[in-house]
Amino acid sequence: MREYNVRGGCNSSNAALIWEEAAPGVWRSCIGSPEGVTPLTLIGAEPDKAALERLEPISPPLRWSDITLEEGGRNNDKLLVLPLDGKEKLYGTGLQMLRSNQRGRTRYLRVNSDPKQDTGETHAPVPYFVSDKGYSVLVDTSSIVTMHLGSTLRAADTDAVWIRDRNLDPEWKATIPSPRVEIKLPREGAFVYLFGGPTLRDTVARYNLYCGGGALPPKWGLGFWHRVPTLYNAEEALREALEYRERGVPCDVIGLEPGWHSRSYPVTCEWDGERFPDPQLFVRRMGEAGFRVNLWEHPYVSPSSGMYAKLLPLSGSHTVWGGIVPDYALPEAREVYKEQHLREHVSLGVAGYKLDECDGSELTNNAWMFPSHARFPSGLDGESMRQLYGLMFQKMTYDLYRGENRRTYGLVRASGAGASSMPYVLYSDLYDHKQFIRAISNASYCGLLWTPEVRKARNAEDWVRRMQTVCFSPLAMLNAWGDGTKPWSFPEVAEVVRHYIQLRMRLLPYLYSAFAEYREKGLPPIRAMSFELSPAQLADIEARSAAGEHEASVDTLDTVAGAYGKRKALEWDDQYMYGNDMVVAPLVEGETERDVLLPEGVWYGLESGIRHIGGGIVRVVPGIERIPVFVREGAVIPMMPPLPHVPANGAKTELHLFHFGEVPGMCMLYDDDGETFDYEHGGDGNWWRASVELDKTGKLRGRLEGEGELPPSYSSVVWHLRQTSLLEHTE
Amino acid sequence: MREYNVRGGCNSSNAALIWEEAAPGVWRSCIGSPEGVTPLTLIGAEPDKAALERLEPISPPLRWSDITLEEGGRNNDKLLVLPLDGKEKLYGTGLQMLRSNQRGRTRYLRVNSDPKQDTGETHAPVPYFVSDKGYSVLVDTSSIVTMHLGSTLRAADTDAVWIRDRNLDPEWKATIPSPRVEIKLPREGAFVYLFGGPTLRDTVARYNLYCGGGALPPKWGLGFWHRVPTLYNAEEALREALEYRERGVPCDVIGLEPGWHSRSYPVTCEWDGERFPDPQLFVRRMGEAGFRVNLWEHPYVSPSSGMYAKLLPLSGSHTVWGGIVPDYALPEAREVYKEQHLREHVSLGVAGYKLDECDGSELTNNAWMFPSHARFPSGLDGESMRQLYGLMFQKMTYDLYRGENRRTYGLVRASGAGASSMPYVLYSDLYDHKQFIRAISNASYCGLLWTPEVRKARNAEDWVRRMQTVCFSPLAMLNAWGDGTKPWSFPEVAEVVRHYIQLRMRLLPYLYSAFAEYREKGLPPIRAMSFELSPAQLADIEARSAAGEHEASVDTLDTVAGAYGKRKALEWDDQYMYGNDMVVAPLVEGETERDVLLPEGVWYGLESGIRHIGGGIVRVVPGIERIPVFVREGAVIPMMPPLPHVPANGAKTELHLFHFGEVPGMCMLYDDDGETFDYEHGGDGNWWRASVELDKTGKLRGRLEGEGELPPSYSSVVWHLRQTSLLEHTE
Repeated sequence: MREYNVRGGCNSSNAALIWEEAAPGVWRSCIGSPEGVTPLTLIGAEPDKAALERLEPISPPLRWSDITLEEGGRNNDKLLVLPLDGKEKLYGTGLQMLRSNQRGRTRYLRVNSDPKQDTGETHAPVPYFVSDKGYSVLVDTSSIVTMHLGSTLRAADTDAVWIRDRNLDPEWKATIPSPRVEIKLPREGAFVYLFGGPTLRDTVARYNLYCGGGALPPKWGLGFWHRVPTLYNAEEALREALEYRERGVPCDVIGLEPGWHSRSYPVTCEWDGERFPDPQLFVRRMGEAGFRVNLWEHPYVSPSSGMYAKLLPLSGSHTVWGGIVPDYALPEAREVYKEQHLREHVSLGVAGYKLDECDGSELTNNAWMFPSHARFPSGLDGESMRQLYGLMFQKMTYDLYRGENRRTYGLVRASGAGASSMPYVLYSDLYDHKQFIRAISNASYCGLLWTPEVRKARNAEDWVRRMQTVCFSPLAMLNAWGDGTKPWSFPEVAEVVRHYIQLRMRLLPYLYSAFAEYREKGLPPIRAMSFELSPAQLADIEARSAAGEHEASVDTLDTVAGAYGKRKALEWDDQYMYGNDMVVAPLVEGETERDVLLPEGVWYGLESGIRHIGGGIVRVVPGIERIPVFVREGAVIPMMPPLPHVPANGAKTELHLFHFGEVPGMCMLYDDDGETFDYEHGGDGNWWRASVELDKTGKLRGRLEGEGELPPSYSSVVWHLRQTSLLEHTE
Repeated sequence: MREYNVRGGCNSSNAALIWEEAAPGVWRSCIGSPEGVTPLTLIGAEPDKAALERLEPISPPLRWSDITLEEGGRNNDKLLVLPLDGKEKLYGTGLQMLRSNQRGRTRYLRVNSDPKQDTGETHAPVPYFVSDKGYSVLVDTSSIVTMHLGSTLRAADTDAVWIRDRNLDPEWKATIPSPRVEIKLPREGAFVYLFGGPTLRDTVARYNLYCGGGALPPKWGLGFWHRVPTLYNAEEALREALEYRERGVPCDVIGLEPGWHSRSYPVTCEWDGERFPDPQLFVRRMGEAGFRVNLWEHPYVSPSSGMYAKLLPLSGSHTVWGGIVPDYALPEAREVYKEQHLREHVSLGVAGYKLDECDGSELTNNAWMFPSHARFPSGLDGESMRQLYGLMFQKMTYDLYRGENRRTYGLVRASGAGASSMPYVLYSDLYDHKQFIRAISNASYCGLLWTPEVRKARNAEDWVRRMQTVCFSPLAMLNAWGDGTKPWSFPEVAEVVRHYIQLRMRLLPYLYSAFAEYREKGLPPIRAMSFELSPAQLADIEARSAAGEHEASVDTLDTVAGAYGKRKALEWDDQYMYGNDMVVAPLVEGETERDVLLPEGVWYGLESGIRHIGGGIVRVVPGIERIPVFVREGAVIPMMPPLPHVPANGAKTELHLFHFGEVPGMCMLYDDDGETFDYEHGGDGNWWRASVELDKTGKLRGRLEGEGELPPSYSSVVWHLRQTSLLEHTE
């Protein structure tokens, strides 16, 4: 009885699992009868097979016979079982804010708007884990998946060495390493994907490319964002925006919160006639001042909305805040949404959306969400709808803009598998700065983007630390619509904040190129350190560091603090790669110094100019005026002036190419019109090679090569060779 | 599509729900094909039909046609739907530590060892809710039940009045009152019970009586408990116990932690030969000094245990800490457990158990638990086993002692439905004092007992406040085995702590009688205020109080603190009834004053002597030397001297009868041998009536009536008439 009833299975047969190669280095197995609507079918992105074919050919990363299908649980749930190595680390499973290495944990991948406990629940559950051995596994489903990532032991495999006496043996561990992953699949079955590597970086890239490649935002999306208080009218919003211009703080996007709707909670998606008497004029005036307008909305439609009558028969059994819950799995419901949004927003020039509250959990936050047993006309139930809702809104709004050949960049509070090609950035009502930093790192494993948005602050130090972090993230936003804080609200650090918002603008060519690499190669623009360091390199660095200071993963028994001891593991998830050549290591309020793990090579403090030898851990003591950022020696960092906003399509500015250190190096610079999808069909999207090489006299010389004399957005190039920092160039 | 496919159903038929009267005032409906092993079948307690028949006859509290069975969700889950009134409050659903009124919440009733979020998960999930309209509903199942207690709205019933504009309307609410309960039943079906009232007090009593009545602990169980550091040997444990005697602090029970096992985590259940070379002698010496011995254990059996080989084939597919997980749904597994425990512990005089870690959740705390998909030889899966495991251990150990005609009283970290007759008290690794107080109140709705055990303290104030609370709880225990704190560890409050431990001893006749009423009438000995106050009385008191200070339930919108506002509701769950005639209103560290809701009548501060007019809210400002306790005018409180420990069966002490105030009154006093089940079959268990009446001259006179001259445990009676406090009698 202690052994599972082991059965192979494909389409419920008793045979061994059958795998097919779905794309180069990507294998797929059909188990049971997969659901009709899944994240991948919903997003509908074509795998970028050309890009996948450019990767080195590989063989399957696991032995097929090691992957088994078993049955367990009251409903004879299907269990997918995979082997684990002793030291293997597992990452991913969505936007996990509380830990990075998920090895030894059970992840319950339910969407949750209030994910305060480390259960796996998250705004963005992705049933996808990534091994540092260089492979990854995806279950493509709209159901809640439970992944036991080395957290279950069976009688047969409990090695006696692990059964220790807690009474006396200090080596007793609260979590015994398990040699397997057990994944509870949906009852119906699912398509399961295995992505090869050979490295972690490669396997994540394969996943992203299989999902259509990474998102390329419009350039303005990488500028600074600000959201105005919810009840501001058009004049007040414009006045607030113009204050950025007056104070010399760059800003590209102004977000409107619920107050732009004629009614909210539930919403109408119609402009309030009093606060916004002429929306078209408002959007135009904002545009003339160099601002894009982003609109907040949530899914629940008020009886006062013009869409209500049409959507009522296309909605679910339950309501939220009295609003109906449209079933956007139905094409006719999507058509109602599209027609209204095109007419009322997109055609006026609105640049994008903030898609809120598509992540509700029935268990928390005043229980506002529809229940899992809700029924929808398409046949989806509440559970599936909740798991898919964030993806549905991303896809619908993305398509709105794509149809107009305009790129968008927006915010969404729920996501899932297959979202890498969606130009949406996750955010949360949670607000722990450390967790926000970890989420930047963790999002990169799963085709997700995350913003550690800034709201209120306890004090000037908290404020400036959060502002520094957000300026080195996928979306730099101040979201203080609740309390009206501005970048200059803490006068003692206002200059520091302005400096980093300007630095974000100056680094736009660098960041935009990193996003282009995301789109074309699937490599996340901002990513966890494990993309850069192999497990062997990491182990080597940790071994060489003082053992006491840099303790590896330990479960210690502390009978006062808790019967099961505490986990102390350094996961290096409080720092991250920013593009190919920078390491960012934020500090949070109360910290005056920190350790930074630097990969092999020589690194320069981007603003300190201090030279560090990599392949180890360095300690930095920055004042509150600095966030520690490190640049690789030889790197060429493309930059531009700190303009008030990103130049519109056609406008030109100066390109500054900063080369660091004494050795040759290069970067690939991407440029295009920054706003359309023309790059997909012979537009001006292209790569330039900016290299620094030794000439015959032994001197370093910069060289920019590509189609045409200069990238289209630039009027001139200024080289800065042999830099050690940006200090002397700070605006 | 928005309406459910409404189907009546009993045994899967399409007919209307059929209800049978299972006992007086208790109706049952069989839905689908209920599971074989459920909490009620497992506990196997016979309904106390005689006691139920003594209650007033009632008709069903709901119209049968208002209770419907529907289908929803991906698996065509069965939904039981019941109507709700506008202001109805709902209590219960197990040991909920984070709120009392569950109306408007969705409760996910999964056992969880680390229930930090307000999702419904708890150490003791009981799929049972209690309405303040005077009825209650139980789903008897080993599955996880999701109860939507007025937290779901449908399009058809969203009253336009609730759809407000959050932009401008301050009356907007985050939670719209829903007119129905929706309960997701187990797929298979379940027996559903409806308990009539007519009051909340009556319906809970019916539930408890249907489950076999309340537990009657041995008298020693109501004394003070202490647990010694885990690695103490026999000599050290005895020495620590004797310090209580030296310092004049009463103590009845000494608990041993994992160190008594020869190996722990997993455990052997065998005495460690070095620390306890002669267990029998140890237990005897403890007994001679007036101490009972309680043994900690958890379910997971070490390969080093003598039970291992026998239990291995009777265990589940997965292990915990390397220990096997016995399937005690199997009689042969129970037999192995019983034989070993009788031989090694019970026959030596061990008085009971602390049953730890039978409440694991696979999602938290280092993921030590077996997974929900685990399989067990009996056919149970991991989910069912987890939901039932705490009940199984209670039942097994209770039966051990019952077979010996000895009562036990113990600790357990998991419980469930039908547990009222089990002499077990819940505890938790959580440690928030406010939550601990709320749990005392909330446990009373569901046939549960709870101890707010004291462990460490931040300072003397925290310490004394916790000690005061625990002395007015079902089990008064210091559980500082981790850090070795003693009652006298904070010298500045040591006398206060001793005073309350002594007061607990003095009040034993009163508390024991309250437990006897629990056993015979199903009325919880310590209970929430709503057992005492009708909804109308409560509303009346709240209306008469200053509206600003005593705000009723409000969801306010606070856009800075959170988009959904905060819930501010006074639930009066920070105070509770202690027996029939006392209100206990603890303070926590940092509080110097508090409000207390007093029911109608005149009340005296038990130790302050202050006279309060009830039917309102009074403000008290006790020093840290006092916990506010109030006695009803006319009450007769039976007490005894603060002996070092509860007298053994046969020993006698003085009975003191304290009468409060100027009016006549009475109490019923229960007494028996305090240790055996003889009361069930013509033993000396009996009730005495202690009354104070006006004699012909108009003077108050006390009178004790019953079988025999005096209750068997007492050698004499001392009356204290017209008291206003215990002050002058304090030892």
